Amino acid sequence: MKYTVAQIAQLLNAEIVGDASLEISTICKIEEGAPGGLTFLSNPKYTQYIYSTRATAAIVNKDFVPEQEVPCTLIKVENSYLAFAQLLNFYQEQQAAKAKTGISPLACIAESAQIGQNVYIAEFVSVGEHAVIGDGARLYPHVTVGDEARVGARTTLYANVTLYAQCVVGDDCILHAGSVIGADGFGFAPQNGQYLKIPQIGNVVIGHHVEIGANTCIDRATMGSTKIGDYVKIDNLVQIAHNVEVGEGTAFAAQSGVAGSAKIGRHCIFAGQVGVAGHLHIDDQTTVGAQSGVTHSLKSGVYLGSPAISADRERELIVYRRRLPEMYEQLRKMKDNQ
Amino acid sequence: MKYTVAQIAQLLNAEIVGDASLEISTICKIEEGAPGGLTFLSNPKYTQYIYSTRATAAIVNKDFVPEQEVPCTLIKVENSYLAFAQLLNFYQEQQAAKAKTGISPLACIAESAQIGQNVYIAEFVSVGEHAVIGDGARLYPHVTVGDEARVGARTTLYANVTLYAQCVVGDDCILHAGSVIGADGFGFAPQNGQYLKIPQIGNVVIGHHVEIGANTCIDRATMGSTKIGDYVKIDNLVQIAHNVEVGEGTAFAAQSGVAGSAKIGRHCIFAGQVGVAGHLHIDDQTTVGAQSGVTHSLKSGVYLGSPAISADRERELIVYRRRLPEMYEQLRKMKDNQ
Amino acid sequence: MKYTVAQIAQLLNAEIVGDASLEISTICKIEEGAPGGLTFLSNPKYTQYIYSTRATAAIVNKDFVPEQEVPCTLIKVENSYLAFAQLLNFYQEQQAAKAKTGISPLACIAESAQIGQNVYIAEFVSVGEHAVIGDGARLYPHVTVGDEARVGARTTLYANVTLYAQCVVGDDCILHAGSVIGADGFGFAPQNGQYLKIPQIGNVVIGHHVEIGANTCIDRATMGSTKIGDYVKIDNLVQIAHNVEVGEGTAFAAQSGVAGSAKIGRHCIFAGQVGVAGHLHIDDQTTVGAQSGVTHSLKSGVYLGSPAISADRERELIVYRRRLPEMYEQLRKMKDNQ
Repeated sequence: MKYTVAQIAQLLNAEIVGDASLEISTICKIEEGAPGGLTFLSNPKYTQYIYSTRATAAIVNKDFVPEQEVPCTLIKVENSYLAFAQLLNFYQEQQAAKAKTGISPLACIAESAQIGQNVYIAEFVSVGEHAVIGDGARLYPHVTVGDEARVGARTTLYANVTLYAQCVVGDDCILHAGSVIGADGFGFAPQNGQYLKIPQIGNVVIGHHVEIGANTCIDRATMGSTKIGDYVKIDNLVQIAHNVEVGEGTAFAAQSGVAGSAKIGRHCIFAGQVGVAGHLHIDDQTTVGAQSGVTHSLKSGVYLGSPAISADRERELIVYRRRLPEMYEQLRKMKDNQ
Repeated sequence: MKYTVAQIAQLLNAEIVGDASLEISTICKIEEGAPGGLTFLSNPKYTQYIYSTRATAAIVNKDFVPEQEVPCTLIKVENSYLAFAQLLNFYQEQQAAKAKTGISPLACIAESAQIGQNVYIAEFVSVGEHAVIGDGARLYPHVTVGDEARVGARTTLYANVTLYAQCVVGDDCILHAGSVIGADGFGFAPQNGQYLKIPQIGNVVIGHHVEIGANTCIDRATMGSTKIGDYVKIDNLVQIAHNVEVGEGTAFAAQSGVAGSAKIGRHCIFAGQVGVAGHLHIDDQTTVGAQSGVTHSLKSGVYLGSPAISADRERELIVYRRRLPEMYEQLRKMKDNQ
Repeated sequence: MKYTVAQIAQLLNAEIVGDASLEISTICKIEEGAPGGLTFLSNPKYTQYIYSTRATAAIVNKDFVPEQEVPCTLIKVENSYLAFAQLLNFYQEQQAAKAKTGISPLACIAESAQIGQNVYIAEFVSVGEHAVIGDGARLYPHVTVGDEARVGARTTLYANVTLYAQCVVGDDCILHAGSVIGADGFGFAPQNGQYLKIPQIGNVVIGHHVEIGANTCIDRATMGSTKIGDYVKIDNLVQIAHNVEVGEGTAFAAQSGVAGSAKIGRHCIFAGQVGVAGHLHIDDQTTVGAQSGVTHSLKSGVYLGSPAISADRERELIVYRRRLPEMYEQLRKMKDNQ
């Protein structure tokens, strides 16, 4: 990659403050900038670094006004974070030209499987009977695609991903290493003091443009389908139980979990280590703070705590709880004075 | 599958209310029923759906009395959930006839390993020296069975399961994809400001009829064995540390964890994201609510909170905590009035 | 293994109380001791067992004074836990002589990869283009080493470990089964109500003498490197997000998680199920108790709670919270009396 600041500004429809002729050869963090490097400033916590960065140019928000001299050229855009993301995507598309293709002779593909055009199937991949692999899909080493499972076009399955039989992944998805789609839901009926397993005869259906983190698990439905909507983004080590439905554009941070049959709305955000109990309904555009425990259905809003309540109220209670010793002491004194 | 309602009722020893001659060709959820479908009603939350289901027949509890007309035939049994589970098992047994068998030429099996009758060993399975695979065991692609490890009869190891050397899994178990049995326990002795690794020379011994979820980890003992009793059911992403012992019929929901050397009784239930500290004793038939943190040994009972206390008391404290602002205000007023 | 008590005492520079000529053939737990067994006593909770153990000898702290007759020979040392760890290491080194070596003809190694001396590379291992495998490294079945990734000397990667492209693991490390190093960080820019993926073009750099637990995930940096210092010890199912930096000698217990760009000091301890929010700084020698949620940067100290505060203060608040019903009742009475 070799571009001038002017070329990049043109790509981003941006305004330049400084030398437009400088050459950019790499992308770098603002606090670790190097000559030839392009960085960006979005989080105000990092503003301090722009006055000392060694980067050649920085993408900043239009409304950024330096409080002192800045040692690099500024590329001013509406939304610096978004512009930087676009640039990284542009960079990665160019890298993609070098991407691996072809089907390894060391893959094991059932004769009845249907394989699309321009796929990459690595060594030691297993593709089951009647499975379907879409055009341009990419399967890294040790991926297992079960019988009758389907992988959409341009979808990437990194190493060790397991897609159980009959499960479906849409187009343009990314499943990271070790993720498991379609293991049996955790369903047992108590019988004579033991558990009788409830066979899990449903599947998992994942939409398009979904990203699923490393070692995340999405269980197959008892009957019907566990459903993950389009544009859902799931981080690492997340648990999605059987028969859960997740609406379009919802995001789960790492180590969060959703119990069986919960219905999660669209454009919700679940922070890290959140738990959602089974059979609940979560409205669209609901946000739940880290480590919260959702024990009842939620209307759109922001929630926090275990059990989760309105975030404002929980934050208030956290403050009041810290006054408990003082309150106790006051009470004791009043009692003594009576 | 094609049965009449009458045939199914006979199988379940059930009473029929409605047309016994109707034909059933599939199993379905009550809210998504379709003609030819058989569903069930157990959770009272779903009662509303029985008045509008498109299913042909529904298994219900004997004591269910409809409040309005029901559009399907009712099959009345003692315990509808259990009856449905039995039916699903019956269905799955029929499916099992189609199950894969045989040993793939692409598996890698040590010559000294001992392989039972009627096994399924998929491509890319690795079986170590002196390992033992029981009759009817099923090993999916990318399973690793370490040296001297043992897999019981009729046990299924799904894709990517790792059974470390010397570990033992009993009969009729199911280990889901990505589960890791026998990794080193987390044991270090501080020495000169660093950690000296304590070699973990024990193993894991899993009983019969145990189910273990996807990406769950059970560590090998420092010495002796980490022990999982018969009929234990463990969900996904659970952590069982070294030298833990789990009694018969105990269940762990997803993302729960037990620290080293804890002794867990029989028929306990740990809900999602629970943590249990090391070296504790948990009595038989103890239930611990979601996200609780168990910091001391527990007598039989129901517990909640972090740190976990009696669930009744914790629920009471949750309510009182919400009165804190009101209490604080009252105190302030009283003080002002003094 | 066959040694006399005298030989072991000499190895540990220890004092013997009892018969020094007895023969030791195995290592055992104090509560399950057997003739010929050597055990140790460190945790005072286990002191009771030394009076009834069937072990032949026990390593104890110098200052241990039995309160009644002890049925085994005592081997007295400065630090019994450390001495026992040394002995186990000695034992394991002898076992290591039997360790597997050689490169399986069923491994798939890119021609451009650089493979060190005396390595063990098992069947179904995949090593990518220009990857580097150090001398004495050990790769178990189904390991994936991505393009241009590097594995240090004497480092062990157990079954199913995935090392993404360009990631680096130092010397003398142990990565347990299913761990995933270098999956994409969870970075998205909201755009028109959807998420635009931020390509993650950095890598992960792991130091020397690091141990990483089963199914643990360490994400690659957006730019630059996610950094794990020397001697860091990470348990199972832990999440380390993109651009996190962890200082030397820090330990994470199972199921803990650190969000993006957090800077963690040296010699910190994070107990089980702890969460640390993004972009925080944690000072050296900070300890955080189980299930805590760290929401702001921390100075050296001991912390507890969600949100985490000083452990002493949190423990005090836990006690006061339990007095809430009593306080509420007192307030009510006072009000009635006014």
